[in-house]
Amino acid sequence: MSLNTYPKTLSGIRKLVNIMPDGNLEAQGKAQSHERILTKPIGSLGRLELIYEWLTKWQARYPAQINEVQIAIFAGNHGVSKHQVSAYPSEVTEQMVNNFALGGAAINQLSNLLDANLNVVPMKLDIPVGDFSEEPAMSESECVESFCVGMQAVDKCSDLICIGEMGISNTTAASALSTALHGGNSIDWVGLGTGIDENRLKHKRAIVNRGLAKHINANGDPLKLLCCFGGREFAAIAGAVVAARHLSLPVMLDGFTCTVAASVIECLRSGGLDHCLVSHCSAELGHLKLLKLLDKDALFDFQMRLGEGSGAALGAMIVRAACEVHTGMATFDQAGVSGKK
Amino acid sequence: MSLNTYPKTLSGIRKLVNIMPDGNLEAQGKAQSHERILTKPIGSLGRLELIYEWLTKWQARYPAQINEVQIAIFAGNHGVSKHQVSAYPSEVTEQMVNNFALGGAAINQLSNLLDANLNVVPMKLDIPVGDFSEEPAMSESECVESFCVGMQAVDKCSDLICIGEMGISNTTAASALSTALHGGNSIDWVGLGTGIDENRLKHKRAIVNRGLAKHINANGDPLKLLCCFGGREFAAIAGAVVAARHLSLPVMLDGFTCTVAASVIECLRSGGLDHCLVSHCSAELGHLKLLKLLDKDALFDFQMRLGEGSGAALGAMIVRAACEVHTGMATFDQAGVSGKK
Repeated sequence: MSLNTYPKTLSGIRKLVNIMPDGNLEAQGKAQSHERILTKPIGSLGRLELIYEWLTKWQARYPAQINEVQIAIFAGNHGVSKHQVSAYPSEVTEQMVNNFALGGAAINQLSNLLDANLNVVPMKLDIPVGDFSEEPAMSESECVESFCVGMQAVDKCSDLICIGEMGISNTTAASALSTALHGGNSIDWVGLGTGIDENRLKHKRAIVNRGLAKHINANGDPLKLLCCFGGREFAAIAGAVVAARHLSLPVMLDGFTCTVAASVIECLRSGGLDHCLVSHCSAELGHLKLLKLLDKDALFDFQMRLGEGSGAALGAMIVRAACEVHTGMATFDQAGVSGKK
Repeated sequence: MSLNTYPKTLSGIRKLVNIMPDGNLEAQGKAQSHERILTKPIGSLGRLELIYEWLTKWQARYPAQINEVQIAIFAGNHGVSKHQVSAYPSEVTEQMVNNFALGGAAINQLSNLLDANLNVVPMKLDIPVGDFSEEPAMSESECVESFCVGMQAVDKCSDLICIGEMGISNTTAASALSTALHGGNSIDWVGLGTGIDENRLKHKRAIVNRGLAKHINANGDPLKLLCCFGGREFAAIAGAVVAARHLSLPVMLDGFTCTVAASVIECLRSGGLDHCLVSHCSAELGHLKLLKLLDKDALFDFQMRLGEGSGAALGAMIVRAACEVHTGMATFDQAGVSGKK
């Protein structure tokens, strides 16, 4: 990305969030005006019209376009994994990164369909972040470094960036972070992840509660909470979201873990996620609750819970469709179609 | 299509519906088995998995594929239009057919994105069907003829057919037909169509009620009701749905009018629409109610109300994605990824 300076401290991140630009209302207004003369009843494309208006606002240009789609997947490992909170062993994170490289994962197929640029960013997988039930997952410098990795991953030549993650045990971290950031009881935030049974769910909740008690002093400070619960992929997602905003690059978020990580930015600044759409409502327990708190209306609910940006990639197809429709349609005058009586 | 005989009477249509094949459970079972060894937690792709299973069941083969997508739009004009039930004059039907031909409509852009074959079938636009508030919209032979036009429009080389419609005043016919087929009060079925005001909505309801009273003797006979309320595009949609089933070609339905027309087949035979998915829940008043009656769960709700197959085309993108994911993903063994603990 072309931002000149990268933050060196948590305070630097806060500043970077505070100076994020607002959307371009002039571009959005042009989209709204043109929408009204296209050969269709006004408003009849419903949400597709709103999506296109959002796209122009945050690409800060009219017409908006979706030629280059980037998909960025951040992968991290978690110390908390040693407590057997997941259905899968932690080596699966790296194995799946290899699977992404070889083209065998779900996201590869979706990326191909989109003709997207898929970037997989493994984040020190051999050194899992600290076990948040005992210590902070990341030091402040570790968090800032990961945030900057996320920033650097953003390709300024993209027209839309889909953000995803991979990390065994990261729904455990996500549930803990979300409880700490957004309040409520962990019982409403801790879900089945990749598919654990009722006993392991109880255990997962207990681990989350232990972490919440451990880091209670960080409450009210979103970036400190990010350090406490991790992991590196969370900080990277937050960094990518902020960088994208600075680069006038709209963002498509994926499921629960991805949205929790991004929500750190909303906690730092109200409206900080206005340049982001949430693609889908995940089957993971806390996602719907989080979407309501963030006032985000997911595009669809397919009861997916895979992560790796899979829902975001589907969402990008819808955005591209909205874009093609707006930019390709004839006007009433061009087509010689009569208007309303 | 390769069906040898076309129906010549309403009774012939009934027979053709009765002998529609069931889905192929063996193909579906193969999809389910393979799904379990792909590199993802079991069930984690949610509805995408169910969509692919449905596709194999109704394409009657494993693996299923989505290479050729057909989009068929049936256009008709309605005698009831003379009562000013729509926001647009009836000449817009033909003007939009020209717009489809020239590539200027929303569906053209979506069709291009899908690399689909778009077939627009104008049905005697210069001779609107009868005004259902005074007389049957179609004679039985007119209905059968239109049904056969729909059958013939189906391309047996397609892997999925999206069905749409265009016809000024056809939500008036659709609301009347749906009330007659599915019961209840017209106030729950008559909506704003392309965008009418409250006064015209009352008038539209009154016209529908007049038609319902006029044709009360046809109640309980779905095909006679189809004749009474029309229009030709409704009969064609029903014909296309039946032909597709005979050709092992899954169907993606569009919004309210399209679903009402297809629902004639479900009324004739329970499960008659099992080879159809409904793409979206339309903003048109009666659609959600109809979907519940048909036990159909739309893929998404974007508050669209354009028709012309626009929602169905978006739905086809999701089906293609489900197909690519299933057929392209590596298995745990192939990718060297560890399974569940």
